[in-house]
Amino acid sequence: MTKVQNTGWRRNRVMVFDTTLRDGTQREGVTLTSEDKARIARELDALGVDYIEAGFPASNPKDLEFFEGFDAGELKNARLVAFTRARRPNARAEDDPAVTLLTGLSAPVACIVAKSWKMHVEKVLRTTVEENLASVRDTVEYLAGAGKEVIFDAEHYFDGFRDDPDHALSVLRAAAEAGATTLVLCDTNGGTLPTELRETVERTVEEFREMPGVEVGIHTHNDSGCAVANALVAVEAGATHVQGTVNGVGERCGNCDLVPVIANLQLKMDEPVRAGENLERLTEVSNYISELMNLTPDAHRPFVGRSAFAHKGGLHVDGISKDPSTYEHVAPEAVGNTRRTPVGELSGKNSVRAKAEELGIEAKDEMAVLMEIKKKEHEGYHYEAADASLALLISRTAGEDRPLFELESFRIISEKRARGETTTEATIKLLVDGERVISTAEGNGPVNALDRALRAAIEQHYPELSEIHLSNYKVRILDEHRATEATTRVLIDSTDGRRVWGAVGVGENIIEASWQALVDGLEYGARTSEAAAGKAASRSK
Amino acid sequence: MTKVQNTGWRRNRVMVFDTTLRDGTQREGVTLTSEDKARIARELDALGVDYIEAGFPASNPKDLEFFEGFDAGELKNARLVAFTRARRPNARAEDDPAVTLLTGLSAPVACIVAKSWKMHVEKVLRTTVEENLASVRDTVEYLAGAGKEVIFDAEHYFDGFRDDPDHALSVLRAAAEAGATTLVLCDTNGGTLPTELRETVERTVEEFREMPGVEVGIHTHNDSGCAVANALVAVEAGATHVQGTVNGVGERCGNCDLVPVIANLQLKMDEPVRAGENLERLTEVSNYISELMNLTPDAHRPFVGRSAFAHKGGLHVDGISKDPSTYEHVAPEAVGNTRRTPVGELSGKNSVRAKAEELGIEAKDEMAVLMEIKKKEHEGYHYEAADASLALLISRTAGEDRPLFELESFRIISEKRARGETTTEATIKLLVDGERVISTAEGNGPVNALDRALRAAIEQHYPELSEIHLSNYKVRILDEHRATEATTRVLIDSTDGRRVWGAVGVGENIIEASWQALVDGLEYGARTSEAAAGKAASRSK
Repeated sequence: MTKVQNTGWRRNRVMVFDTTLRDGTQREGVTLTSEDKARIARELDALGVDYIEAGFPASNPKDLEFFEGFDAGELKNARLVAFTRARRPNARAEDDPAVTLLTGLSAPVACIVAKSWKMHVEKVLRTTVEENLASVRDTVEYLAGAGKEVIFDAEHYFDGFRDDPDHALSVLRAAAEAGATTLVLCDTNGGTLPTELRETVERTVEEFREMPGVEVGIHTHNDSGCAVANALVAVEAGATHVQGTVNGVGERCGNCDLVPVIANLQLKMDEPVRAGENLERLTEVSNYISELMNLTPDAHRPFVGRSAFAHKGGLHVDGISKDPSTYEHVAPEAVGNTRRTPVGELSGKNSVRAKAEELGIEAKDEMAVLMEIKKKEHEGYHYEAADASLALLISRTAGEDRPLFELESFRIISEKRARGETTTEATIKLLVDGERVISTAEGNGPVNALDRALRAAIEQHYPELSEIHLSNYKVRILDEHRATEATTRVLIDSTDGRRVWGAVGVGENIIEASWQALVDGLEYGARTSEAAAGKAASRSK
Repeated sequence: MTKVQNTGWRRNRVMVFDTTLRDGTQREGVTLTSEDKARIARELDALGVDYIEAGFPASNPKDLEFFEGFDAGELKNARLVAFTRARRPNARAEDDPAVTLLTGLSAPVACIVAKSWKMHVEKVLRTTVEENLASVRDTVEYLAGAGKEVIFDAEHYFDGFRDDPDHALSVLRAAAEAGATTLVLCDTNGGTLPTELRETVERTVEEFREMPGVEVGIHTHNDSGCAVANALVAVEAGATHVQGTVNGVGERCGNCDLVPVIANLQLKMDEPVRAGENLERLTEVSNYISELMNLTPDAHRPFVGRSAFAHKGGLHVDGISKDPSTYEHVAPEAVGNTRRTPVGELSGKNSVRAKAEELGIEAKDEMAVLMEIKKKEHEGYHYEAADASLALLISRTAGEDRPLFELESFRIISEKRARGETTTEATIKLLVDGERVISTAEGNGPVNALDRALRAAIEQHYPELSEIHLSNYKVRILDEHRATEATTRVLIDSTDGRRVWGAVGVGENIIEASWQALVDGLEYGARTSEAAAGKAASRSK
């Protein structure tokens, strides 16, 4: 059988549809502000995904706020997608606010979910098969008529197909005939295994082969541990649209992780995707999104984890030194990751040199810097998001330590009375330019009070600090099982309105860790403020 | 073609080969004592795995110590396996201590690894193909002759087969003819995708179909995100032996996770395995092994994660209440897990009722509870991971507030001197059972000091609290862009050794937020300890 010629909507390459901001937020414990969503959307757009599904505005006021505040035209690569359900049984699409709401949004794409498993139609929706088909037809027609590109998510497609293939196909056909351009087969419960999934996709693709302008897509979940493999197998079976989330975040066991999907399609399956053109950014994007979602990045993630190219066994380290392909399935640089070995520091030295150059400073002894970084990382420091602390570490290792002041002591007092608010004040004593200063400030937490007292103490000597303020404060508990005795890592971002830089502090005491990051952030800001005054911000968050 | 009749060594069912204690310990940061290994081996044996590979005694003195101290006869179900490599080139097996060492151990099974990729033979081993074959033959013959069951691990089999199928097969044939009973195809670099893997396994199985007493096995790694799917696909292609680790621990991106493999084989693939007879112990075994390896269990693990059957979306909660199969691929009880319906911003009255039932309390007015939850969530509270705070909220809304004590005041002081550590102490004044108590304690951070002072103050009145300790402490800064002035959410998990419960606190001041979570955690623990005390621990270890 020959492949049907691509016409109209049929694409030459697989489309990557990211739903981190919609299905991904179903993960327990994840909540994103509109601003977080905008930052993630820009990051995904820069990576080159084809669609960004950013929420379900009819069900969630925060999602609506995002769609109303974010201009879809701002995206350079991706099309913005708003999600909704098909109209309610026995109603009209034009009277259903969950449907009509989408017409007023700037998002050019509507993703409509409806049921394709008869049991669901009857037991959950409590309607008839005919009314369900009518609901699909009406809703797709209405939104396509309003100028939207319509993607159709067939919920429980694989369970529905197992139960009654003709019924499942009839739901897809209703959507396609009404104007949907992509029919997405959803393994909603995540229980389907690769072989059955492949056969079902093949039969479905075959069914729509002769219908121009209609693509088949795949949406998998990881309840059987096969989400990524299922997506790849579906592409082999003819699907040309893959839905998933960055890092596989999602309800229960998560959605299909787009990170390995993109890497496998691009590097191994001869199925180039647009995001594959920026593959060397994959590790950064994965880490950045983890950070914004406040999820500890799993070190063992395929392709992008910190341990994904770490070689522990002696035999492996030996093999790698002879030829990296002996123990690496792809080159770590291809996905923006780095090889780590207990002994092989050559690549490390290069990175230090590159980093120093990037920061505009000189690394006199890369080896000494590397040793210091390794020691610090062992203690729990992490420099990926802490450029300022890394720059200061490189300078200090080169003997160029120029602290802003000399600390004598500080003291923080937090007090609470019955039913009263907790109040906090900090007093700091230090020497700056030979002068002893004592300063006290109140704050709405210990770190805030300390920050205010420190600035009050030294701002007279460093007027440039008045332009600098903290833009982000993150706390991560390492060794969480040690509870309140665990080590704490604090990341503080500072900005002068043009640039943003990060600093890190680590300690058993959160106050100590925060103090280190505060001081690094201010020192870096003061030292670079003159040099930086000319430079524009490289990234505008 | 008809299936060859099982004779001699050919088995009727798939064998599960666990290598948590050998390949699993290659994971960065994992070290196990001999005692830990013995406990894990007994747990795996009770689960019913067929083989337990417990180490590489010739390369690791601690592994040798384990094999010398542990009697293989103690295992009721599993056969104990010692791992080694084939003899060195141009030497004799009987002169190679890495080989001969195994003959003196009680482990009845030897697993021998050798190279099957020509590039490796030449580049890494630096020998000839003929000498490599001789090494395989000699080593297998020697150990089989010494009475061991010999399992042969063909390293880099899939890369080797891609490069030169005849060569890869010749290595297997050498092992089989010398007496190996299982030929294990290893995807050492973890880069092979399901379709290629299936074809290679099929061709290999076909090759040994006529050789009685020889089985084909599979050993996969997760570098492409497909380890579990690859193992399942291999079984469909004729493999009857699956190697992997519990929770997928292993080097880089980990080994194949045996937990979903066992569950999928047993529940979905009509391939019953012995461990499948104890499937309801799967969650417990997975958690227990995480605990012993000191790894935080991933809540999103297929089948056994804490979130694997957690339903957040309101539509899903509604569906589940009508029929669990609407949103669950298998019944959670089948694998010893439980359904959870976290109450989040997306859910409704059904979830509150389900939650109250789950917690064994009565929600008198679900609507009032829901309003209170919504109000709290707007302030930044989050109850999904805070069962204890939610239960207390439901009780309090029903007018059943029973606080443990009445706070008068607390004060926390943190101090730092130049180059000194930060020290922290907390003083608390409160009324408990009408008695006024003042208590001071030191801690390695403000929250730790406060926790200690509070316990010291009330433990005399609530002796049951001595059994409760904090097991996890998480801090999330909301509105991060407000930096140290932002709102803070604190989650604290507590445990009495049998149960784990979460509590939440929110405030602009991290001390205030932590205080709320500490108090909720203790109050819930005290209020439920009597009810819980009656229940015996389901496990005595």
